[in-house]
This record gives sequence, C-alpha cells and structure tokens, in this order.
Amino acid sequence: MSDQPLPVMQGPVCPLSLAHQTQIVIGHGSGGTMSHDLITRIFLPAFDNPTLRANDDAGVVQPNQVTRLAISTDSHVVWPIFFPGGDIGRLAICGTVNDVAMSGATPLYLTAGFILEEGLEMVVLNKVVASMQLAAAEAGVHIIAGDTKVVQKGKADGLYINTSGVGIIRDGVNISGAEARPGDMVILSGPIGNHGMAVLAARGELGFQADIQSDVAPLNHLVAAMLDAGQVHVLRDPTRGGLATSLNEIARQSQVCITIQENSVQVQPTVNAACEMLGFDPLYIANEGKLIAIIPPGDVKAIIEAMHATRYGEEAVVIGEVQQAPQGRVLMKTNFGSTRIVDMLAGEILPRIC
Amino acid sequence: MSDQPLPVMQGPVCPLSLAHQTQIVIGHGSGGTMSHDLITRIFLPAFDNPTLRANDDAGVVQPNQVTRLAISTDSHVVWPIFFPGGDIGRLAICGTVNDVAMSGATPLYLTAGFILEEGLEMVVLNKVVASMQLAAAEAGVHIIAGDTKVVQKGKADGLYINTSGVGIIRDGVNISGAEARPGDMVILSGPIGNHGMAVLAARGELGFQADIQSDVAPLNHLVAAMLDAGQVHVLRDPTRGGLATSLNEIARQSQVCITIQENSVQVQPTVNAACEMLGFDPLYIANEGKLIAIIPPGDVKAIIEAMHATRYGEEAVVIGEVQQAPQGRVLMKTNFGSTRIVDMLAGEILPRIC
Repeated sequence: MSDQPLPVMQGPVCPLSLAHQTQIVIGHGSGGTMSHDLITRIFLPAFDNPTLRANDDAGVVQPNQVTRLAISTDSHVVWPIFFPGGDIGRLAICGTVNDVAMSGATPLYLTAGFILEEGLEMVVLNKVVASMQLAAAEAGVHIIAGDTKVVQKGKADGLYINTSGVGIIRDGVNISGAEARPGDMVILSGPIGNHGMAVLAARGELGFQADIQSDVAPLNHLVAAMLDAGQVHVLRDPTRGGLATSLNEIARQSQVCITIQENSVQVQPTVNAACEMLGFDPLYIANEGKLIAIIPPGDVKAIIEAMHATRYGEEAVVIGEVQQAPQGRVLMKTNFGSTRIVDMLAGEILPRIC
Repeated sequence: MSDQPLPVMQGPVCPLSLAHQTQIVIGHGSGGTMSHDLITRIFLPAFDNPTLRANDDAGVVQPNQVTRLAISTDSHVVWPIFFPGGDIGRLAICGTVNDVAMSGATPLYLTAGFILEEGLEMVVLNKVVASMQLAAAEAGVHIIAGDTKVVQKGKADGLYINTSGVGIIRDGVNISGAEARPGDMVILSGPIGNHGMAVLAARGELGFQADIQSDVAPLNHLVAAMLDAGQVHVLRDPTRGGLATSLNEIARQSQVCITIQENSVQVQPTVNAACEMLGFDPLYIANEGKLIAIIPPGDVKAIIEAMHATRYGEEAVVIGEVQQAPQGRVLMKTNFGSTRIVDMLAGEILPRIC
C-alpha cells in the first residue's frame, strides 16, 4: 500500500462539487464525497426524517413496542455481471444482507426487483438467479417479494437488481455510526481491496493476469457471533469508497477522530501489486465481504476470538483506535512513522463496482 | 368498451411461450401471461417459500408473535418520466404504498433506490424527488433508507426508481388473492384505463389531443376506511395487465369463477374513445389508483358507503360476483347479453407503463 496520497484520491475538496453541477455525472455514484453531496442537497431535504438522518447502512424503525426493524435497500449495477469470486446475483443478496446486519440486526426477509434489458440471454438470468438462491441459503434469508420490469435494448445493460432487506434487531443492541467513543478500538475483519480489483480484472483493465477473487460474502453470521461475544458500538461494511470513506463517515457521525495503523491493514499481495501498477490506493477500493467494528476496549479480546472462529472473520485484526480530536478526521500512522490525513473518496475511481 | 376480443389481447395461449424463449423479450415485463411464465419457471423454483408462493402484491411475514409485516418491492421504469397526472416519482411512491395496502397493511416505511443515467438533468431529479416527497406526505409514509447508483450514458433511460415498502397488518385482517369465496361480491373503486392511456398520450402515440389524466394515487387511506367498515377477503390494484389480468390472478389463486357485468365497469369517455381508436380493450390497460375488493355480501353496503366518503373511492361500484365454477375463469356479461371469457393479458401492449 502506498503511503503517498495518489492524484485520483487527493484533496479534501471535490473538484466537481455538486453546487456547480447541472447534470448527474458518474462521480455521483461513487459512494464518496459527490454521493454524499447529492444525498445532502437533494434527497435528505426532501425525505427528511430522524431515521434517514442517522445515515447508517440500514434505517432502524420501531413499528410497535416489541419490534425494532432494520430496513435497507441497494440497487446493483455491477459490470460485468460475472467476475472472479462472484456475480451480480451473489452481490445483490450479500450487499443487502450486510447492510441490514451492520445495524446489529438479524436479516430475515429480502425483496428482489429486476430490471431486465430486452435480449438478455435466459441462460444468464438463470445463472444469476441460481447464484442468488445459493447466497440466500448461505445467509439464511428468504426472498419474499419480487418484481420484474423489462426495458428496450439499449436502455439498461443486461440486468440490474435491487434488493431490499428487513431484519430484526436484538434487544439491548444499539449499533450506529454515531456510537464510536474515544477509547474504542477499531477492528477490520480481513484484507481489503479484493472486490474492486476483481471486477477491474474481469473488465480486462488490469493489463495483466492476476489471481484476484472478489470477497463478496454474507456477513450476518459473523455479526451474530460478534454480538454473542461482546458489546459493539459501530459496524460498517466498507463497500463503495472503501475503508477510507467508511471510516470518514463514522468519524463525522460520531464526531471523533479515528487513527489507524497502516501496517495493520492487510492487503493481499496480488491486490496490492495491481493497485500499485494502476495507481490506486487500496484504502479506497470497494469490499463486499469485510466489516469494520468499533468496540469498547474491554470486549476486544472476546470479539476477535469469536470472529476468528467464524468464516469470513478468520483474519480479523485491530487496526486502530478512536480518539477525541481532531473531530471528524481519519488519520493513518504510516509505515514510515509519519501521520497522514485519510480523506473520503472525492471523485470516482471505479464506476459500477456494485 | 368493445365487447369483441381484440387481436392484441385475444387467445388464452401466449404465442411466445417462455418454453421457446432463449432471450428476454418486452412481453416478459407485461404483468400478463409471459411475466407469470417467467416467475413460475425461473424465480419461484429458485426462491421458493410459502410467502412468495402466495403470489400476492406484498409478502406477508411474521417475525415475532405480535407483528405481521407486509413487504413489497417495485422497480419503476415508466417512460416518459412526466405524464399527465403524475410522474415516475409519484408512481414509485404510490405503487409500493398500494402493494403494501393490498395486504390490508398500514404502509409505514419505504426505501428508495435510484439508478441514474449519466447526464440526467439535476432539475429533473429535483422535480421527481419533490413529487415523491408530496406523494409520501399524502400517504403518510416515511422514506427511511435509500441508495443511488449512476450508470454511463446509454445504460439507462434518465432514471429508474425502485421502492420497497414495509407495513403492519392489523389484528384479525387476513387478505389474500386466495381468499375469494363463492357468493362474495366484487367491487371496483372507479373507472379504469386512465394511467395507461395517459402515459400513451404523453408519448404522443395517440395521434390526437385527449385530456386524459393518470389516476396514480395512494390508496392506503381508502383501504383503512374499508377495513374499518367491514370484512374484506381480497384486495388488488389492477396495474400492469389491467382489471382483466388481476381478476384472472384472483380466480386462479382462489380457484373460483369471477363474473363481472360489462355495464358496471366504468371507463371515462376520453379513455374509451382513445382505446377504441387504438384497438385497445380498457380491461387490459394499467391503472395506478384503483383497487378491486372482494367482500362478503353482507358487508357490501357498509364498505361501499365508506369508500364513497373517501378520496379515490367516490366512484366505487359493485361490478360482479364470485361463483364456484368454472374454476380459475373470469367471465363477463356483455352489454349485448352474451357471456365472454376474459383472459389474462397474453403479450405486451404498453411497455414501460410503470
């Protein structure tokens, strides 16, 4: 991993600020600064309510005295449809399962909305649906409602899949990006950057052969094991915008500083090599089977042990800690002993990564 | 309304049966026979579970002893984005509110997933979002989670919106397409065909000026008034595929025969004229603010009165009744005194109507 800020990620200010935009550009789907601008300027003012304002991966609501629900939605437009380690179907299931799980909820029910392009091969649809079935079985969730729309050739790109998810939050669990407290420790469940670089490899954009598999996986069983083992303040899966963007979101929501150690953040050698060659920083590359957990120091040992005993948590490590100040900042102690500011993703580096 | 079956709707067997299809065609999004084939052959076998198999507008689930949820999803790809009486934003809110309400649930929470095409004018997005805000306020629902994806120019058509909805089902309410019983009466909440013909008018495909407004509206308050007034066995909003297709779905689910009176089914004169000129049967044209209710005869008076006192229910009338046989059939007593079979929509007459 490079310790030098790279051109595409540098600078705290997005050069294409929404204030100057009269049209949607690719960066608005980045998950980084431009996405946040779009949400803050257009969606939040219109739809404003406390749940949406909480700005977590899923909306948490309480329809009656005994039930707390976590509800999330994600549209999936990844291209290509199939990539090493996964496909749009597995991604659609895992993405939403994980968003629900990041509220500390047990995901139970999913909906699936398909937008199909005229001319899509039925064999492709069948393969994607079979992959969704497998992923749903692995996660233990049921798809209980669906919808199919067809648009003319040239009005989509094969297929897009929206999944929405509903889960039940356990009693006593209160997990949110706003719950990080000074003194808490930051855990990362495994090496980063696989999903983004696997999709890029599938596009043939690496320019060389690399054995990189997407990490796309359902994390709900891992989360359940963690909640059994101790107290968790924050959970987030670093998807679009990568680890750097997710940590920045949490630092802002909780008004804390998060400091991570560069040498604790694992990157597989093939992923690292691909990033170096293309000038990408793995901190900004999307993951689809990793989570960040922020937990009180007393619970670190038990939770890490529980993670290590669980599939998808075997490589969990502490990567940093939470401090009081500077508020809203993410800092990284580099391998060279210096400290650098880690900003949110500004533009867009990998469109249609999920 | 014509009493002669029209070429585009005729014949019980779809000429393009899925068995012979190797690619997705426009008809797979019709809401009619081909959509049902797609669901039966591809989605149901993979995702099979009792809730999905119930085949209602929303999935009904019970996550704990005291809570019954209705959950639904709909992707909206209507073209053009704006049409007389509505737009894709109002449609996205009302479509999902109505699907949840058709389970006898009180819709509470919506999610919104946007797929935006690069180059979409920000002013268009703003207008659509404002329309969603208004419709959500009218329905009394909150948008509590969202997602935005951006695809390259030419990979979508302006914007597509998925909305998923979650509602709570009242105690004692058990509404499903499988609950129609011989002797029950069939109520229709108002005149049919407006939405489909309004969208067609907006496309300039009528070839003449016609003052036709879409009926797109949230029906949850109407449903609440009906449930306060009496017992309801079936609710369904006749969207894609129109009244004919929805009645056929119910007849099959309940294994009953539904007989309607042609002269009871209202069609506004402008809608009727447009249908006649284009060779469409209003029975197959999409509605977005109408409902079919099937209720025990003893509750008809009270429920019709309650509907008449409610916005969107003022023109409610009894249009037919439920009989034992022939099972799975919809019959219509025509204005000429004959009885004709009313089939499900076979092909596709109006792509991207919702």
